Amino acid sequence: MRVGIVGAGLQGRRRAPVLRDFLDTELVVISAAHPESAKRLADSMGCEAAVGWEPVVERDDVDAIVVCTPPHLHAVISIAAMRRGKHVLCEKPLARTLDEAQAMLAAARQSGVTLKCGFNHRHHPGIQQAQQWFDSGVIGEPIFIRCHYGIGGRPGYEKEWRADPLIVAGGQLMEQGIHAVDLCRWFLGDFAQVTCLVGTHFWKTEPQEDNAFVLFRTPGGAVASIHSSLTQWKNLFSFELYGRDGYIAVEGLGGSYGTERAVLARRDFAAPFGEEVIEFRGSDCSWHEEWKEFVAAVREDREPLGSGYDGLEALRLVYAAYEAAQDRHVVTL
Amino acid sequence: MRVGIVGAGLQGRRRAPVLRDFLDTELVVISAAHPESAKRLADSMGCEAAVGWEPVVERDDVDAIVVCTPPHLHAVISIAAMRRGKHVLCEKPLARTLDEAQAMLAAARQSGVTLKCGFNHRHHPGIQQAQQWFDSGVIGEPIFIRCHYGIGGRPGYEKEWRADPLIVAGGQLMEQGIHAVDLCRWFLGDFAQVTCLVGTHFWKTEPQEDNAFVLFRTPGGAVASIHSSLTQWKNLFSFELYGRDGYIAVEGLGGSYGTERAVLARRDFAAPFGEEVIEFRGSDCSWHEEWKEFVAAVREDREPLGSGYDGLEALRLVYAAYEAAQDRHVVTL
Amino acid sequence: MRVGIVGAGLQGRRRAPVLRDFLDTELVVISAAHPESAKRLADSMGCEAAVGWEPVVERDDVDAIVVCTPPHLHAVISIAAMRRGKHVLCEKPLARTLDEAQAMLAAARQSGVTLKCGFNHRHHPGIQQAQQWFDSGVIGEPIFIRCHYGIGGRPGYEKEWRADPLIVAGGQLMEQGIHAVDLCRWFLGDFAQVTCLVGTHFWKTEPQEDNAFVLFRTPGGAVASIHSSLTQWKNLFSFELYGRDGYIAVEGLGGSYGTERAVLARRDFAAPFGEEVIEFRGSDCSWHEEWKEFVAAVREDREPLGSGYDGLEALRLVYAAYEAAQDRHVVTL
Amino acid sequence: MRVGIVGAGLQGRRRAPVLRDFLDTELVVISAAHPESAKRLADSMGCEAAVGWEPVVERDDVDAIVVCTPPHLHAVISIAAMRRGKHVLCEKPLARTLDEAQAMLAAARQSGVTLKCGFNHRHHPGIQQAQQWFDSGVIGEPIFIRCHYGIGGRPGYEKEWRADPLIVAGGQLMEQGIHAVDLCRWFLGDFAQVTCLVGTHFWKTEPQEDNAFVLFRTPGGAVASIHSSLTQWKNLFSFELYGRDGYIAVEGLGGSYGTERAVLARRDFAAPFGEEVIEFRGSDCSWHEEWKEFVAAVREDREPLGSGYDGLEALRLVYAAYEAAQDRHVVTL
Repeated sequence: MRVGIVGAGLQGRRRAPVLRDFLDTELVVISAAHPESAKRLADSMGCEAAVGWEPVVERDDVDAIVVCTPPHLHAVISIAAMRRGKHVLCEKPLARTLDEAQAMLAAARQSGVTLKCGFNHRHHPGIQQAQQWFDSGVIGEPIFIRCHYGIGGRPGYEKEWRADPLIVAGGQLMEQGIHAVDLCRWFLGDFAQVTCLVGTHFWKTEPQEDNAFVLFRTPGGAVASIHSSLTQWKNLFSFELYGRDGYIAVEGLGGSYGTERAVLARRDFAAPFGEEVIEFRGSDCSWHEEWKEFVAAVREDREPLGSGYDGLEALRLVYAAYEAAQDRHVVTL
Repeated sequence: MRVGIVGAGLQGRRRAPVLRDFLDTELVVISAAHPESAKRLADSMGCEAAVGWEPVVERDDVDAIVVCTPPHLHAVISIAAMRRGKHVLCEKPLARTLDEAQAMLAAARQSGVTLKCGFNHRHHPGIQQAQQWFDSGVIGEPIFIRCHYGIGGRPGYEKEWRADPLIVAGGQLMEQGIHAVDLCRWFLGDFAQVTCLVGTHFWKTEPQEDNAFVLFRTPGGAVASIHSSLTQWKNLFSFELYGRDGYIAVEGLGGSYGTERAVLARRDFAAPFGEEVIEFRGSDCSWHEEWKEFVAAVREDREPLGSGYDGLEALRLVYAAYEAAQDRHVVTL
Repeated sequence: MRVGIVGAGLQGRRRAPVLRDFLDTELVVISAAHPESAKRLADSMGCEAAVGWEPVVERDDVDAIVVCTPPHLHAVISIAAMRRGKHVLCEKPLARTLDEAQAMLAAARQSGVTLKCGFNHRHHPGIQQAQQWFDSGVIGEPIFIRCHYGIGGRPGYEKEWRADPLIVAGGQLMEQGIHAVDLCRWFLGDFAQVTCLVGTHFWKTEPQEDNAFVLFRTPGGAVASIHSSLTQWKNLFSFELYGRDGYIAVEGLGGSYGTERAVLARRDFAAPFGEEVIEFRGSDCSWHEEWKEFVAAVREDREPLGSGYDGLEALRLVYAAYEAAQDRHVVTL
Repeated sequence: MRVGIVGAGLQGRRRAPVLRDFLDTELVVISAAHPESAKRLADSMGCEAAVGWEPVVERDDVDAIVVCTPPHLHAVISIAAMRRGKHVLCEKPLARTLDEAQAMLAAARQSGVTLKCGFNHRHHPGIQQAQQWFDSGVIGEPIFIRCHYGIGGRPGYEKEWRADPLIVAGGQLMEQGIHAVDLCRWFLGDFAQVTCLVGTHFWKTEPQEDNAFVLFRTPGGAVASIHSSLTQWKNLFSFELYGRDGYIAVEGLGGSYGTERAVLARRDFAAPFGEEVIEFRGSDCSWHEEWKEFVAAVREDREPLGSGYDGLEALRLVYAAYEAAQDRHVVTL
């Protein structure tokens, strides 16, 4: 598979080196709005550089595109690429609006290509372990998830594009919290209701929130409680899933989030508290695993884990949470 | 101070021995509905036993009453005692209804006696340390609290009085979660809004919930997110308070909740994550400290920490949360 | 079984209430050198008080004696009691000298009574779990134990009897570390060699050490590394046993040593680090379990876990460690 | 500074990329015994490749050499380089024998160049923080260090050069444990005595040990207890330093050793246990910091932290420990 990357920012720099792990993947070109950014990254990766996204999308010798731009460009680039028959791995959030996201899915369908949303968290080893345990039925029917995901920002954050409402689709819940939303939906299925409180407490990013507290409920009654924060002064990722017969927890994501651990315990009213604990001390392999899944889905002509549809649904859930926060009622989905 | 205890169940047995630590307190009588219960506890405490609450309330040689009965008797006993000029320490929730609670406050006012609600958690050393840090201003203006409090229940729970809607005022949020509600209000002040999801997932206690997820917001915008659970298969108490300049956390309550720890950290965008950690490894001293506060408040003729009014307000907040859950909108307080 | 306790200090006060848990045990009398100490404890236990040890030993209506005095009286009291046909549970260290300890064993043999040494640590739930795992063979042949056991002392420690060389048998290794020595011997069997460094660094307790570092080796080559410390400013108990196929760890003893946890892991060169963790959050049950074992051993006429012989051997090992430290060579046992 | 690296194994691959962080450092050439190894690493670093160490040492355009070969080549390469006026950063252990190490120091002196031993652990942020706290005097005069350092090896370990007595200077204590030896000497100063037990329990590496337990003592009486293990099935680095007034601990080294943390606590007989905890969640920066120190020492013409002399002394201490283990007595240094 011959690949072009659009975007040489944080995500482009993170995703590009991963492609070198794969013998069946060849990184052909990296483009960015700024020629220097593109050239610097392309040089270190030993591939071509380009300016703007059009030259990448228009190349005939490219099979797939990785879209690592800010959100406002996701749809236009992805759709142009898919119309030219290219498979697309697009960063989260999949698009800025539901209309854009739906247009992306339509383009993928019409062109018969694979569209994947960059939900790399599904590929973290702790989450994979959790899913495996959950699927085995060991904790039984799910009761609730608590998921806290937050960082502390950095000086000048309000001047970054992440704080620009013309570029992004929302605040912290949309930018980082959407991973938590996607994970909760992956484990619990579709939700029926949502209530939410948002606030802009510390960072001058209004109207984008720096904190969102969201409560989702499935038709069957299981609850997902998500806190997405940009004032979490010590980086935190915590995902706890309680079922009738036990619980599963994932803590940390490696790196600045601390060692990644997965925990399994069975309900037992008589015995002392017992847990099975697995520590994943290596470096973050989620980007590698995500690429592997993308390539496999293309090859097998199937929907990838974290598909375009998953990207659309996560977007829908975040917008529903925003609506609940604004209208101060429980929104039915 | 000469004291009578009404109720020889779990709470009576927990509170009675504490009184022996105080030279200025004399435990005179313990009563219970069942003569045997009263006698067994009274014998081991070296005091008199009585049957029913009336004999205790009617004694002239008793200055104060500790009400350790199930909730449906709190108001009637407390009011009878206060009308006879006795000070009252009443277990939480203060009463079954807001009307009852208001009548209790009125009785205290009219008789000029002290009414305290059994919010012993305010006296846990970790919470006390947290309040001290918070008061010092070190973490700045508060942004949010996350408080998780839960246990796993025990076989037959649905047959206990705690599951009887004629006896209790509500489910897990009312029974245990009210401590979290009171703590959040203590730190953040009065709330302006609440939204809530409740569910009865595992224990056959309907209409009482075994899980409640509550989001409160103050007029100034600070959020308190509370999860109160009876399906927390490993006992958990966790209280995290984030401010503009740092955060405070309390974990554990000793005993089955694990070692109690208080944590303080300052926001720092440049340095590695640093925390000050204090471990309280001794046994639970909150009951001792609460009694000390009650006696001091009586002596100094002032409102105690965790007053009757605090009990009323916590009750009001829980009922508002239930209303929000039922009506599926954000309730304005 | 009718029981007398000699000694109303820290250990007497700790052991006496435990006897009330047992229907087949009746606490008859408590004696102490100081009448007031004896009376205070006896009153709260509802039994008789006596002054000095002789009146207890001489009673015909007592079947067993618990010796909770300082070490210099262990042998004389225990031997007198056993000669009168009484079973004895004697605090550790079993005696002040090897001669005394051997005389105690001889007395037990001659009188056909049970002699148990107060090695309550064998009965801690974490240690019991560790022994069970170890016996199952899951970690394979043992390679080494690391055991750290320490406290920080308290102001005036050098004036307590624990610092008086006429009363005690040695310093911190003899007083507290002997539990670690006994546990290592229990798991690994008899040792063939020992080397040791001791020091008196902080507490003015010379010639008794406040820190001892000991390395034992079994004939088969397994090593036990013990650090016994009176300058461990945060209470610590840590016991780690590594075998060819995995490891077992016990941390904490509850109370001021922190929550007790037992950990099991299997060697695996390919998988991420996985552990099974059990938390014993209840209060310290080792005294209860030890008494149960004593009563059972008496009834079944067998050697108890933590027998007089175990007490003798632990004493021998500590003295050998002292010899190694003094002579600066590896002592062959 | 123009630099050549000799050795393209694990250490060469680890050290080479670090040099790119420095504007004043230019990586000129990488050599290895196998042309392919050299070429692969050189290509990815964008520098020349060479076969064997001589071509690197003989280049006139190279100012400094990094020696990343197995130990048996350290001395011959380093001495040849220094005689040609090149500064040398040589991996630990500095050499295979004390004679070799002394010849290296002599060569450095005679040529007036800088010789540094690759003790990167001195540059770990937790250790640096520990040293800073220790220097401030906050924990007072040192009493003891406990340092545990271990890994679990990997299948086929006995066939690696690390197990070949013709190539290495010793077993696990010499290969990995020497870091712990160097750190203990750095904090406590020179030692006066050592006793030691070694064993080859699991890995067929005889005569090299896979476990060493070492006790050092300073002239002033402070003790360093080191356990170096190749059967530590879960990677472990733990360094605890207790002084008269408090303690310092460092746990983890990042990566497979878990998040690196530094802990400081003051002795306090009255207060609950309090600790200051710092978490270093970033990637391992010790290699970067070590290179910075090397360049600075060269520029300032001074001894670097972790000098050739420190390398010699650590080697001497390990050999003394081996002697103590073999002769079964406490060796005086």
